[in-house]
Amino acid sequence: MKLSCPDRVGIVAAVSGFLAEHKGWIVESQNHADPESKRFFMRQEILAESLRFDAEELRKRFESIASEFAMDFAVSDTAVLKKVLILVSKQAHCLDDLLYRLRSGEMEFNLQAVVSNHEDSRRFVEWHGVPYHHVPIETGNREGGFREMDKLFERYLPDVVVFARFMQILPAWMCEKYPRQMINIHHSFLPSFVGARPYHQAYERGVKYVGATCHYVTSRLDEGPIIEQDAFRTNHAHTVEELIRIGRDIEKAVLARGLRYHLEDRVLMNGIKTVVFA
Amino acid sequence: MKLSCPDRVGIVAAVSGFLAEHKGWIVESQNHADPESKRFFMRQEILAESLRFDAEELRKRFESIASEFAMDFAVSDTAVLKKVLILVSKQAHCLDDLLYRLRSGEMEFNLQAVVSNHEDSRRFVEWHGVPYHHVPIETGNREGGFREMDKLFERYLPDVVVFARFMQILPAWMCEKYPRQMINIHHSFLPSFVGARPYHQAYERGVKYVGATCHYVTSRLDEGPIIEQDAFRTNHAHTVEELIRIGRDIEKAVLARGLRYHLEDRVLMNGIKTVVFA
Amino acid sequence: MKLSCPDRVGIVAAVSGFLAEHKGWIVESQNHADPESKRFFMRQEILAESLRFDAEELRKRFESIASEFAMDFAVSDTAVLKKVLILVSKQAHCLDDLLYRLRSGEMEFNLQAVVSNHEDSRRFVEWHGVPYHHVPIETGNREGGFREMDKLFERYLPDVVVFARFMQILPAWMCEKYPRQMINIHHSFLPSFVGARPYHQAYERGVKYVGATCHYVTSRLDEGPIIEQDAFRTNHAHTVEELIRIGRDIEKAVLARGLRYHLEDRVLMNGIKTVVFA
Amino acid sequence: MKLSCPDRVGIVAAVSGFLAEHKGWIVESQNHADPESKRFFMRQEILAESLRFDAEELRKRFESIASEFAMDFAVSDTAVLKKVLILVSKQAHCLDDLLYRLRSGEMEFNLQAVVSNHEDSRRFVEWHGVPYHHVPIETGNREGGFREMDKLFERYLPDVVVFARFMQILPAWMCEKYPRQMINIHHSFLPSFVGARPYHQAYERGVKYVGATCHYVTSRLDEGPIIEQDAFRTNHAHTVEELIRIGRDIEKAVLARGLRYHLEDRVLMNGIKTVVFA
Repeated sequence: MKLSCPDRVGIVAAVSGFLAEHKGWIVESQNHADPESKRFFMRQEILAESLRFDAEELRKRFESIASEFAMDFAVSDTAVLKKVLILVSKQAHCLDDLLYRLRSGEMEFNLQAVVSNHEDSRRFVEWHGVPYHHVPIETGNREGGFREMDKLFERYLPDVVVFARFMQILPAWMCEKYPRQMINIHHSFLPSFVGARPYHQAYERGVKYVGATCHYVTSRLDEGPIIEQDAFRTNHAHTVEELIRIGRDIEKAVLARGLRYHLEDRVLMNGIKTVVFA
Repeated sequence: MKLSCPDRVGIVAAVSGFLAEHKGWIVESQNHADPESKRFFMRQEILAESLRFDAEELRKRFESIASEFAMDFAVSDTAVLKKVLILVSKQAHCLDDLLYRLRSGEMEFNLQAVVSNHEDSRRFVEWHGVPYHHVPIETGNREGGFREMDKLFERYLPDVVVFARFMQILPAWMCEKYPRQMINIHHSFLPSFVGARPYHQAYERGVKYVGATCHYVTSRLDEGPIIEQDAFRTNHAHTVEELIRIGRDIEKAVLARGLRYHLEDRVLMNGIKTVVFA
Repeated sequence: MKLSCPDRVGIVAAVSGFLAEHKGWIVESQNHADPESKRFFMRQEILAESLRFDAEELRKRFESIASEFAMDFAVSDTAVLKKVLILVSKQAHCLDDLLYRLRSGEMEFNLQAVVSNHEDSRRFVEWHGVPYHHVPIETGNREGGFREMDKLFERYLPDVVVFARFMQILPAWMCEKYPRQMINIHHSFLPSFVGARPYHQAYERGVKYVGATCHYVTSRLDEGPIIEQDAFRTNHAHTVEELIRIGRDIEKAVLARGLRYHLEDRVLMNGIKTVVFA
Repeated sequence: MKLSCPDRVGIVAAVSGFLAEHKGWIVESQNHADPESKRFFMRQEILAESLRFDAEELRKRFESIASEFAMDFAVSDTAVLKKVLILVSKQAHCLDDLLYRLRSGEMEFNLQAVVSNHEDSRRFVEWHGVPYHHVPIETGNREGGFREMDKLFERYLPDVVVFARFMQILPAWMCEKYPRQMINIHHSFLPSFVGARPYHQAYERGVKYVGATCHYVTSRLDEGPIIEQDAFRTNHAHTVEELIRIGRDIEKAVLARGLRYHLEDRVLMNGIKTVVFA
């Protein structure tokens, strides 16, 4: 269960009183009061077996408290795997990484399909028994490509679309159609080096670290709410190619962590920022 | 307010219900349920002005809940600064660091005195208007030195004794007399390199990082509960002297963070481990 | 070309004079003088096309200088890929990681075969067109298993054997038979937590970081020369299972970096320590 | 000795041959060939006692080689301490840090004076026996303030001016008058958050790390060549004040490292980037 509402006295008491009354066993509980936005954020992980009813019923019974405190709230059942669509272009290191985590059981989600503007990863994806859709984004007909892609979104109705190094800029209408549902890995330590070829920009600037950022996609390029970041030390001796190689390892780790937070409902929105109950 | 107790349903509800009843405004609230020890840990930071009574009264009123749940609990008033004694030998980088944080207002505590087995830091400490006690620990009469040191402890009754690179091993009786009241900075990434000359040990072993560890002092050398750690990359080109230099910066930062956690009552004990609500 | 020898005046002059005389274009050049062992270490990466002869001829012509300075030296041709055998048990994250790096061209080596005491990874390895050998190590007949494994080593004559989370302890005779040819990834920040179940040890001790170490295998368990290490922050809220998950990402990255250094002849031995020209 | 020149065959041979001929004992030697700018960079640390002449004579004798290879080169004698002027505003953590390193002998330089647009640090600086100059920078007469400051520069003729959190933007003429002689610590991970209040910017953007950058001052604000950087993890729970506190520790460490590199002549310029032989 995750929720946010205007901050005031008694929120925790109301929520925890409600849960205690129904004998809900709290496995993990986190909250955050933002002094600036004056909002309160909370995440409660409750052992399903400790309740005598299901997630849907929990949601219903909680509604009177939610309306009393003007809460945005959501209840999700971890037994129901989230539906995921992965978008990829040519570089497949993030895709490979996520597929290993999936098939080894480290991460749990329902991978519906992989969509790509290239054919390169088909054989590997299909070996996993996962459908692979090739949707070309052609210079003369980019919009057509995205329309076709959107049809796949409407067909699969994924909970999350993961941009695992998908190197095309989505049209604004598409970004706005799926708010907080599309997660991107950008290959720089944002807000440094927005846009194309960030490793080249980092090389030109002579920075001493390269990094990666996992964020929600919005219609403003690389300005979506940041979920997770990391960086790794470099020096003058590294060529652009080496920065790219070093960066791949950061990208994989950062996307995996960011996606895990999202899948486990650990990310709440606070304006254009995130609250991540890691 | 910090507390720990056996885990069960209803703890958060009871505590937050109690606070809500008294209109306590929760600034920060954290908790942790340890699945192994089956204990529950909680820290509540409450705005003093939101309550109609003081810390002592809060403690009293809370006692019935505390006994119901078999809680270890403590309430402290942040307006009452903790009394601190700093122990130092010759190397003064941690002492200098803490004194700057104190005089710039970054950290707040009541520094009663500095105690040292050397005279080196006297002038600098006294410039701050802080008493400086020189207590020699002589090879032939170590016990006598520690007895004298203990008299200072008994005179000042500090809440915390900080070993800011104090290079003498305390006798067991002294360690046991002040449990969870003495904080040490050890110049290695424990449990690696226990004991003397850890940077030399690190150099001999050829490790690729050196680190530091802030921990509570117990009678078992360098085995006390760890509060905070950090490490920094090194390589084959670093001499022992360079490892020592690099290490000093880690020691300063790790001790300052660990001490802050302790002063702000963010550290709870879970057997021989700590729960740090950072 | 890599070399080490007793330190004295004139080594760099002799080596670089020799290379300049043959118009050798130095792409990368590193050296290190160890003040303690009084040895000098050097690595020169020379553009093959800039020389009028091959690696074998270079070796011959260099011999008079090498003997003058009592050098240990080796010349290797990067066009000749190193032969690699990977050993794995059940956990396949490092194997998967190396296979992706290999098939994407990020790392270049000649993967001869994967050897395992389990069948689990067969399908995935064979999909890559790489032979998979299952060699059971049975409790009653461990020695027999290792003898069989050694036959594979003798058949393939690998330049390097990579222990990509191979969970069996090799007999001493085998460790000694292939010195500096076997690379292990140990799942702790050595010398902390030697031996079995290091994440459990780390959890019990309450450390604030978990790490991994890539090292050469010697007959003394987890005491071989360290090639590369890294660590990641944890806290009291992480269970052992989460430490293991976090650790996997460090293990993958550390093994990949360590193996790359070895494959690119960037690792020289200085007693029980390494000099890594990263 | 440090030098840079167009890359070609024979540079190392010429330099090391020259040094060997004069029995120069090389303590540390590093070089870098930049494939893009096609320049070669080198730093040689030579034991003074191993030469039969001084730095000035070395310079003279080396000139024919330098002109043959069109080298920019400089020889400096580590026995001659560099003259340093420190500029500071109100926040004194970097100043305090450098003063401790100086008085403990960790760093060696000739601190001529501290210049500030405030009086705050006078007592502490003068306690060290170092002159303190208060030069107000007033809104109506900023230029006048800087003219007065420049007079101090002309009087002291420092080798380096260190901006240890000096919060005024220098006029362009002053930046250009002292190229590669002024070192600044900027309180963000550049190029993120240029200009004023970077921690506020970082807070607004919701980044997951804050950092600091040590760079040479040029007339383009915060765009000078980067010498050193670092970053530290933060999260949603950190207020701006906490980011500032965390940042101070990074600033101190990054400035100290960057300044050390400069003082030890480890920094060479490669266009707008640095080569740092750390």
